[in-house]
Amino acid sequence: MPTRTRPSVGWIGTGRMGYEMAARLARGGADVLAWNRTRAKAEPLAKYGARIAERLPELAACDIVFCMVAAWKDVKQVMGELLEGKRQPRMVIECSSISLEGSAELRQLLAARGIEYLAAPVSGNAKVIKAGKLSFVCSGPRQSFDEALPLLKMIAPAASYVGEGELARIVKICHNVFLGVVIQSLAEITVLAQKAGVPRHAFLEFLNQSVMGSMFTRYKTPAFVNLDFKVTFTPELLRKDMDLGLDAGRRLEVPMPLATLTRDLVQAMMGRGMKEDDFATLLLQQAQASGIELRPENVAVGDGLS
Amino acid sequence: MPTRTRPSVGWIGTGRMGYEMAARLARGGADVLAWNRTRAKAEPLAKYGARIAERLPELAACDIVFCMVAAWKDVKQVMGELLEGKRQPRMVIECSSISLEGSAELRQLLAARGIEYLAAPVSGNAKVIKAGKLSFVCSGPRQSFDEALPLLKMIAPAASYVGEGELARIVKICHNVFLGVVIQSLAEITVLAQKAGVPRHAFLEFLNQSVMGSMFTRYKTPAFVNLDFKVTFTPELLRKDMDLGLDAGRRLEVPMPLATLTRDLVQAMMGRGMKEDDFATLLLQQAQASGIELRPENVAVGDGLS
Amino acid sequence: MPTRTRPSVGWIGTGRMGYEMAARLARGGADVLAWNRTRAKAEPLAKYGARIAERLPELAACDIVFCMVAAWKDVKQVMGELLEGKRQPRMVIECSSISLEGSAELRQLLAARGIEYLAAPVSGNAKVIKAGKLSFVCSGPRQSFDEALPLLKMIAPAASYVGEGELARIVKICHNVFLGVVIQSLAEITVLAQKAGVPRHAFLEFLNQSVMGSMFTRYKTPAFVNLDFKVTFTPELLRKDMDLGLDAGRRLEVPMPLATLTRDLVQAMMGRGMKEDDFATLLLQQAQASGIELRPENVAVGDGLS
Amino acid sequence: MPTRTRPSVGWIGTGRMGYEMAARLARGGADVLAWNRTRAKAEPLAKYGARIAERLPELAACDIVFCMVAAWKDVKQVMGELLEGKRQPRMVIECSSISLEGSAELRQLLAARGIEYLAAPVSGNAKVIKAGKLSFVCSGPRQSFDEALPLLKMIAPAASYVGEGELARIVKICHNVFLGVVIQSLAEITVLAQKAGVPRHAFLEFLNQSVMGSMFTRYKTPAFVNLDFKVTFTPELLRKDMDLGLDAGRRLEVPMPLATLTRDLVQAMMGRGMKEDDFATLLLQQAQASGIELRPENVAVGDGLS
Repeated sequence: MPTRTRPSVGWIGTGRMGYEMAARLARGGADVLAWNRTRAKAEPLAKYGARIAERLPELAACDIVFCMVAAWKDVKQVMGELLEGKRQPRMVIECSSISLEGSAELRQLLAARGIEYLAAPVSGNAKVIKAGKLSFVCSGPRQSFDEALPLLKMIAPAASYVGEGELARIVKICHNVFLGVVIQSLAEITVLAQKAGVPRHAFLEFLNQSVMGSMFTRYKTPAFVNLDFKVTFTPELLRKDMDLGLDAGRRLEVPMPLATLTRDLVQAMMGRGMKEDDFATLLLQQAQASGIELRPENVAVGDGLS
Repeated sequence: MPTRTRPSVGWIGTGRMGYEMAARLARGGADVLAWNRTRAKAEPLAKYGARIAERLPELAACDIVFCMVAAWKDVKQVMGELLEGKRQPRMVIECSSISLEGSAELRQLLAARGIEYLAAPVSGNAKVIKAGKLSFVCSGPRQSFDEALPLLKMIAPAASYVGEGELARIVKICHNVFLGVVIQSLAEITVLAQKAGVPRHAFLEFLNQSVMGSMFTRYKTPAFVNLDFKVTFTPELLRKDMDLGLDAGRRLEVPMPLATLTRDLVQAMMGRGMKEDDFATLLLQQAQASGIELRPENVAVGDGLS
Repeated sequence: MPTRTRPSVGWIGTGRMGYEMAARLARGGADVLAWNRTRAKAEPLAKYGARIAERLPELAACDIVFCMVAAWKDVKQVMGELLEGKRQPRMVIECSSISLEGSAELRQLLAARGIEYLAAPVSGNAKVIKAGKLSFVCSGPRQSFDEALPLLKMIAPAASYVGEGELARIVKICHNVFLGVVIQSLAEITVLAQKAGVPRHAFLEFLNQSVMGSMFTRYKTPAFVNLDFKVTFTPELLRKDMDLGLDAGRRLEVPMPLATLTRDLVQAMMGRGMKEDDFATLLLQQAQASGIELRPENVAVGDGLS
Repeated sequence: MPTRTRPSVGWIGTGRMGYEMAARLARGGADVLAWNRTRAKAEPLAKYGARIAERLPELAACDIVFCMVAAWKDVKQVMGELLEGKRQPRMVIECSSISLEGSAELRQLLAARGIEYLAAPVSGNAKVIKAGKLSFVCSGPRQSFDEALPLLKMIAPAASYVGEGELARIVKICHNVFLGVVIQSLAEITVLAQKAGVPRHAFLEFLNQSVMGSMFTRYKTPAFVNLDFKVTFTPELLRKDMDLGLDAGRRLEVPMPLATLTRDLVQAMMGRGMKEDDFATLLLQQAQASGIELRPENVAVGDGLS
């Protein structure tokens, strides 16, 4: 593809997920200029052909700027810095997990300057990205989505367009509510099967192969089997997303009995002091409620990704 | 493989699922002798090389006999007929969805005659079998499983061994409890997304591609999008399996808050008269509770199988 | 008691409950000056010796002013009118059901003018007041409570002091959360007993006499037995109070599984169109979920009040 | 009343509750012959004019025999002993907490010998009886109830007749299901109020005086305030009664979401090792789930009984 038709791409944020996403983009042949608050974290991208910016405002000269940071307050700050000069990108694609309200505020801010905006949160974690199995859910102007699609496809095999405005944000919230319910139900049945005499690895091997198996049940299997709860998503973040879902449910008058009960189980786990590890410690809470103490099974089980 | 080392296989029950399973076995090269109460339903198997038995006791001469019928009372009856003469198979592989108690009774009956017995329920429906995506969960003597494995693999790509005795039955029950919770949660978030403005087909397209997508969420998508609730599994059967799971939870002292609440939502749906259609009508109940009436979206969506 | 030691009392709001409260005060011998937006509703108080004000600001000359109106926006408006002139009461006693935030705003407003403020919501309805069985829960300065107590006792036999600031508001919210859970549980067991063959009036007669009986179960008995759902408290108001309780639970990190589930059942009932009648229609929703249609039993049952 | 029209009354079982019931009967002027496996426990009844039997079969000569023992197996045994000779009472009044099935079996046994049978479980504990506040719920032939009423009234101020057969048993089960839900909800709101800053004794003082207050909330107040969890009813017995209620709900197709969720919270508490103390330790579980540790408030609070 000739250089002049290849859009230049700015990338803000090279944390665990952002780094892997930018890496796929660069390796896929995009013209990437990356920036990260801690520059050292962005530098390894150079080996895939990306350039590393000294200062964030340099990215304003790019055609399209992606943003993948921690939370709304970070989005707000980096967008302020990006647009402090006279230059500005044609489009911003925002991938962080932020609220509907934050997303709408950003849309207003960008619209006022004539910049296109695509809300594009994702489903997956760093390992999922690396395995080439990420998925985007996008909302905003259809033509922005169509234009962004070739870039999105370099990062993830799947990108869905769900409509105008901030709809992608509510879809991501629904996704995370589902994730909470599914892990709690998985904890219930895994402990039941274990008390009946079925080792966790055998139980989950079957479940993962069954019609109920998902990428999620597979990549949580090592945690459930060997009790390694290194954090990928904290209970607090899960509670936050479930509360966002329940808030939407209140506003839209949608009762959500399973979601609300799961939310309380997450809160109860936090009350019992299980806050720092991964949210999959819901398994441990379930075991306590069932009168047993779990031990690692020390069985090598795959996560379906590597 | 030389004929004398190829085991002869009897197949009892060629209903929707049994037919597809037997067909895969016959096409895979097994020496199949099939029997069905209504003989006409078994006859099409002849085109794959299977022989059709006139009378059930003929199958007693086979090395291994599979059984795939509706319920425990049917299992009991066909086993009685099978063993009424002097001949008997070396092994019985029972695939119906029966209770732990039924399975244990069958084990005793077969053990008394020196017949090996493998409990081998499955995850999937007729379309899943046809698509080559069924999975078995097996329990009984390990050596019986190892011996049966080549036959199981002709039918399904995945067959898990979970231990001695009737453990496979509790695993299947856990699987169905999970299925109930997952469909209810899916109904909650689908209605939430819709009230927020996201069409069901767009929402589910994303979810199916996401880390939360499973064969199950995919093959239920046409029902959720176009409201075709032709029965694959009745609310009553789901309630029965959830009750089996909750009974096990009582006996083993495992509280199961999401399962028990889902069970009550299924019961409430039945109380409201939604009994005859597929259990996926939980979506309709959720919509009613949310003050909206759903309409088919009439969008062609895949089921991930065909 | 000599006139000069008898405080003059202003009364704002003579709706269903306010009227009965003011009437008890006047009959008890207090020097009452009452005001209501629709003056005609206040006038019958004259027969108990109360004076009726033409304009709200007249009440500013009283020592103590009670307020019993519909909602926070009404409280805000009447307080503005009350204090528009130069005179002002020594103390305000606010009895409406308002939020913690509204109550705190009012406290600030009154403190700035040196007016004492007692938050004093109540438990009961108009019939309960008339039967002399109301109860107050109060918070604010202890000395204000002590000073107000003789007046409170004229209205209600019971007045509890629970602490400083707006604590009485959270107690009232907890009370209403409890009320929601209790009525739902009552609906569940009443329908169960009925399907087992016990008439509702017989069931509730026993329950009301048992250790579980409360004024609340007794005054809801006619509605449950004869299906008269004339509104005393709407589902929407119950939902609002339950949401206030759940919001407090979120802020204070208190999971409340029964409260949150009941809240969703109220929402589901509203989604099904049962919005206009009394919240006791939760009984009808429970009956529908149980596959039966209720009929009035047409049995004369007491409400424990008259 | 002339001696010849005064029925002779046998009393089986003088445990904590049985003793107090028999004492009220004797003090009320009934002609009581009491028996207890451990005779010493029955002897103090002599001071109220009761006679103490050496052997259980002596009671067969009485007109009416009451039975108040621990469980169905005890009922079965004492009834066997009672009826081993030729003599037999005209009526048996059974007050223990037994299942529908047990009650029906007893009815059959007594009917075969032409003995009238009244099922008459109670609401209350030993202190409630002593305070003269017990209540009976009765089922069986109406005329048996009418005949027994004067005796019942000596024991308890309230006795309700709910119909034929074993209906009183299901009513008692519903009562205990309600009790479980109420205590859990009370635990939720008490912890919420406390975290908001309201001492438990102040909160419960108000609640007990409010329309929501019941004998039950009052007599549980000391436990909630001062954390004295001396057992009056074990978690295991509560779970048993809730399971009986949920079983009836299954059979009669009545979904009971609050009951089933409370049942699981009781089970979870037992799983965490809280089995030996009173079921009111649900408060402690709620506090743990809310991240706080409770301390006794050491405030003298009444129980509404003494």
